[in-house]
Amino acid sequence: MRFFSDNAAAVHPAVLDAIAAANHVDTAYDGDALSQRLDGAFSDLFGTECAALWVSTGTAANCLALASMVPPHGGVFCHREAHINTDEAGAPEFYTHGAKLIPLDGEGAKLTPETVRAARSAIRPDVHRVQPHALSITNATEYGLVYRPDEVAALGAVAKDLGLGFHMDGARFANAMATLGGHPGDVTWRAGVDALSFGFVKNGGLSAEMLIFFRTEWAEVAKIRRKRAGHLNSKGRYQAAQVLALLEADRWLENGRASNAGAATIADAAGHRLVLPVEANEIFLRLTPAEAASLRAQGFDFYDWAEGEARLVTSWDQPQAEIDALAGAIRALGS
Amino acid sequence: MRFFSDNAAAVHPAVLDAIAAANHVDTAYDGDALSQRLDGAFSDLFGTECAALWVSTGTAANCLALASMVPPHGGVFCHREAHINTDEAGAPEFYTHGAKLIPLDGEGAKLTPETVRAARSAIRPDVHRVQPHALSITNATEYGLVYRPDEVAALGAVAKDLGLGFHMDGARFANAMATLGGHPGDVTWRAGVDALSFGFVKNGGLSAEMLIFFRTEWAEVAKIRRKRAGHLNSKGRYQAAQVLALLEADRWLENGRASNAGAATIADAAGHRLVLPVEANEIFLRLTPAEAASLRAQGFDFYDWAEGEARLVTSWDQPQAEIDALAGAIRALGS
Amino acid sequence: MRFFSDNAAAVHPAVLDAIAAANHVDTAYDGDALSQRLDGAFSDLFGTECAALWVSTGTAANCLALASMVPPHGGVFCHREAHINTDEAGAPEFYTHGAKLIPLDGEGAKLTPETVRAARSAIRPDVHRVQPHALSITNATEYGLVYRPDEVAALGAVAKDLGLGFHMDGARFANAMATLGGHPGDVTWRAGVDALSFGFVKNGGLSAEMLIFFRTEWAEVAKIRRKRAGHLNSKGRYQAAQVLALLEADRWLENGRASNAGAATIADAAGHRLVLPVEANEIFLRLTPAEAASLRAQGFDFYDWAEGEARLVTSWDQPQAEIDALAGAIRALGS
Amino acid sequence: MRFFSDNAAAVHPAVLDAIAAANHVDTAYDGDALSQRLDGAFSDLFGTECAALWVSTGTAANCLALASMVPPHGGVFCHREAHINTDEAGAPEFYTHGAKLIPLDGEGAKLTPETVRAARSAIRPDVHRVQPHALSITNATEYGLVYRPDEVAALGAVAKDLGLGFHMDGARFANAMATLGGHPGDVTWRAGVDALSFGFVKNGGLSAEMLIFFRTEWAEVAKIRRKRAGHLNSKGRYQAAQVLALLEADRWLENGRASNAGAATIADAAGHRLVLPVEANEIFLRLTPAEAASLRAQGFDFYDWAEGEARLVTSWDQPQAEIDALAGAIRALGS
Repeated sequence: MRFFSDNAAAVHPAVLDAIAAANHVDTAYDGDALSQRLDGAFSDLFGTECAALWVSTGTAANCLALASMVPPHGGVFCHREAHINTDEAGAPEFYTHGAKLIPLDGEGAKLTPETVRAARSAIRPDVHRVQPHALSITNATEYGLVYRPDEVAALGAVAKDLGLGFHMDGARFANAMATLGGHPGDVTWRAGVDALSFGFVKNGGLSAEMLIFFRTEWAEVAKIRRKRAGHLNSKGRYQAAQVLALLEADRWLENGRASNAGAATIADAAGHRLVLPVEANEIFLRLTPAEAASLRAQGFDFYDWAEGEARLVTSWDQPQAEIDALAGAIRALGS
Repeated sequence: MRFFSDNAAAVHPAVLDAIAAANHVDTAYDGDALSQRLDGAFSDLFGTECAALWVSTGTAANCLALASMVPPHGGVFCHREAHINTDEAGAPEFYTHGAKLIPLDGEGAKLTPETVRAARSAIRPDVHRVQPHALSITNATEYGLVYRPDEVAALGAVAKDLGLGFHMDGARFANAMATLGGHPGDVTWRAGVDALSFGFVKNGGLSAEMLIFFRTEWAEVAKIRRKRAGHLNSKGRYQAAQVLALLEADRWLENGRASNAGAATIADAAGHRLVLPVEANEIFLRLTPAEAASLRAQGFDFYDWAEGEARLVTSWDQPQAEIDALAGAIRALGS
Repeated sequence: MRFFSDNAAAVHPAVLDAIAAANHVDTAYDGDALSQRLDGAFSDLFGTECAALWVSTGTAANCLALASMVPPHGGVFCHREAHINTDEAGAPEFYTHGAKLIPLDGEGAKLTPETVRAARSAIRPDVHRVQPHALSITNATEYGLVYRPDEVAALGAVAKDLGLGFHMDGARFANAMATLGGHPGDVTWRAGVDALSFGFVKNGGLSAEMLIFFRTEWAEVAKIRRKRAGHLNSKGRYQAAQVLALLEADRWLENGRASNAGAATIADAAGHRLVLPVEANEIFLRLTPAEAASLRAQGFDFYDWAEGEARLVTSWDQPQAEIDALAGAIRALGS
Repeated sequence: MRFFSDNAAAVHPAVLDAIAAANHVDTAYDGDALSQRLDGAFSDLFGTECAALWVSTGTAANCLALASMVPPHGGVFCHREAHINTDEAGAPEFYTHGAKLIPLDGEGAKLTPETVRAARSAIRPDVHRVQPHALSITNATEYGLVYRPDEVAALGAVAKDLGLGFHMDGARFANAMATLGGHPGDVTWRAGVDALSFGFVKNGGLSAEMLIFFRTEWAEVAKIRRKRAGHLNSKGRYQAAQVLALLEADRWLENGRASNAGAATIADAAGHRLVLPVEANEIFLRLTPAEAASLRAQGFDFYDWAEGEARLVTSWDQPQAEIDALAGAIRALGS
């Protein structure tokens, strides 16, 4: 039973259907009818004009976004444990031609306005120091916490004040929205976010992630950079089809709710073992090595995190039986 | 009727079936069972040990290959009209961190050993000049010609002699093999090719191209670069499934034969209008503007090439009726 | 007797005196009193507001200028034999993070408006092709020809029309000005030049070249890039001192006239052996191998250029006796 | 009285004399007689075969060294407050094409083997994480501490064990050697250092720093990178002359001793105000704002460091009267 990562989940049947339905000759690259619908679809969703580009991976989405904000000699404020800083093999440095990620601290991988302001103040504004040009946050965070609209807006105000572009890595944006409810504009552009990496692959997609520009004027150059990075698929219609299928009937949100619900059940079982509150679909547990071994012996696969801690992630398609089995097994460990 | 590019073709049904068959939980990235089969499958096909990496686009395959051969301060010999030089938005420069493409001439986008040797001799070996580190050819070429094994071997011998890595852009490798017949090893590793971009998307695939290393020791770093470029899809099994489906029962070759056959029919109709022999699935025709307009008025879509010339490309799934209609229309233009 | 390159010449005594005079404690980097005088000195010389940055080499000046004009995904029009394209080891690609030099042809390494317009027209404006963002010319050219103000202005008009930044590599700007006479503004900013690499090292300097921005708003980022490239000398006052000494009493121009005069004497002796008119301090001669060997046997050192051709360069400090000896030796070869 | 930085000091008279003595025609770039002597001179000094390259700045020396050790996708262990991490405007990222500096902690900017080993262990060896390829230390450190040979050797052993290149930033190597005494090989190549940035500019030079490769096989590519970075001065003999003059009669060491002696005098006066021991020519003092203002009012210029702390640096040419005046003024502040 795989609680290792939501990356391993299956593809939603509606996505496969949409791919099959797109299987006829159409214009190459992003000139096809489906790709051409994306700007409108996301503009409708967010309630403002958006430019929407498909790419194959969240890494590509994040890095194209950052490259829109930061020159090669600039810096990016992010959390020390942000995916862009720890899990993308230096892709941000590659796409930005050597910009520097400036890691900041904060509980549960969340940043605060105070942290960002203090970091900016510590950097002497001269040619010897790398000057920050962007702020990047992850929502839901790498520790499964969710930024609320007011928290994002406070960071957005700081970003604006300090002249920083503002990027949100939304690899689990669906999980965040499932928790937050409300309008997706509130936690993004209305809160000052300039560009959003909107994750679909962890959430029922196959190979399509979206890069959403609320600063639509950045899209033109980003499209050049996408091609230059080898991310302009020649049969783009199959990318667009996936995303449109998940937007339809709010499937993306429904899937986010499903994985969150599984995590909530497990969190309930875990009780005071929880390292952090469970606000999305990631659970961080205190487990002794013996307890971890016991769970694994029962067929549960998960990730060892810090010493004495484990990370478990639920997926949109996780069978309820697996959730219940895991919850039961955790309860059975005692406390 | 689309003769604009084989990029616009549909996906082979077996590919869609294979994707559907892969639709269950498996390890993320390239740790899944299907991805793990690729090295073996291509080693079998080529008759030598291969390292096989899926990527989303031919541009990514080409550029990861080049980056394996060329340092940032080095150069790449290629044809002036090579796809890497004219149609990849500077992706080779991006992936290699600024290596220089050194364009060479040759009819039908083919290079000869003499041309390569002369170009090397013209570059003074000192620190002021960019020194070549690789040779890249395209087979079938951008003009639809096919390098024979002996021609590739002659270039491979020059590459070895001059200390150059040797890359083959095989976006239309299936078309080349359909023409050549014989063993795919003869025109690749046995002829000195170090890395091959093996195209599947133009040939019935959806989003998976293959980068084949005959120098398997290069694969480890290339896998890091693939991740760093945002090309390590998290659900890699759907990439691998596409390729395995096309390898099965030699579908890739069958599809290459199908598009070549369509081109041959049209070439036959075109007669002395042909700018170059038709050896694969691209046809370069002399057409007056009035003739081009006439064909377009009849519903044929194609690409204006040089002045008074047009490029038409047939696809693996092109209906015979479209082929016959185009052949008839060209014949009807007279000569 | 060294006619190999003006790079080998000695340093003007006034430069050494100025360095000695600067030998006291002052602010580091470019905060010293001498460096602070440069903007004003060049603004006076050119008759418009300039931002003036010292760097150690012409390569650094050229490449910082180009990086101000061209994004990593852009292109630079230049002559095929431009120093930036053939003799800087890929430094333009390094500083611009992979921009593409687009080589154009033209006699004597000169470009014409027609050539530039035709090259621009040949590049389809889409994301697949690298789009040009700058035009770079060399004055005096790599073949010792001099662009007149009207020729530069015609190119400047094209650059403006096509949205290209306009850079002049003036490694031998002193030689060009010595030939042209008149005001240095006429052949630069009044003709549309945005940035000038103003050479001092070939012309009596020791280690200081100047990058002059007529678009002063570009200087701020260029200063960051200068530091990032390791070109912000910590004792900048010795750089500034060199340049100020050569500006004083128009020594730079006097030195340019001196080397040009030497070249004129040799050109006069060479007569119909000249491959190109001699307009600055470079002489391209037709010489048989036997003739070249004979000159070398007499102690003249020079560069073999194309087959049957040689390049000879005169320096600002070349003794008249060497000039006369060479002129005599060439005359003695007969015709 | 300038205690702001040793960057502001004058040039040693012997250096100016050597520049004047080099003022005649010679081969350009590094082909001149003086540049050709450098490999031998440093091989003699270090007692092993060295390859010795002049460059204009310590930043260039550091970054060319790092680029020899680290691929674009790799990482560099260094202290959080290392000059390469905080004061070079991202030059390491530029020269390495985006490698990641991985900052480590340690008192007085010194690293220990335990710190390095722990950092390496924390990085999962897969394609998602940037893997370290080099270790860089500064001797004397940015806080004026000096690594002893045994300390360096312990780090060198770790570097070797972990497969890391080992770089020493010796911007103040002369100060370190003045403190250590003994043979310069003991604290460098015999301790496992692969490449040393050997500072001369802070120590009586004008514009020449040295990059010393103990791994001489790295020099060939480094020379290409030097050219590509615009650091191959065309009149290299004036660079070499400076360095040879400072090597002669151990002037570099004498100058290091002179600045260290000044710092020792001030340290003695400072007593328990010292934040750290004074082992070279940098003094870190606890000063209240009022005390700092008082010193400045008396004409002493220095750098505010952390809150309530100041950095003072002595130079090789600092007049004894200035040293005594500062020592007296500090004593007069009381304790």
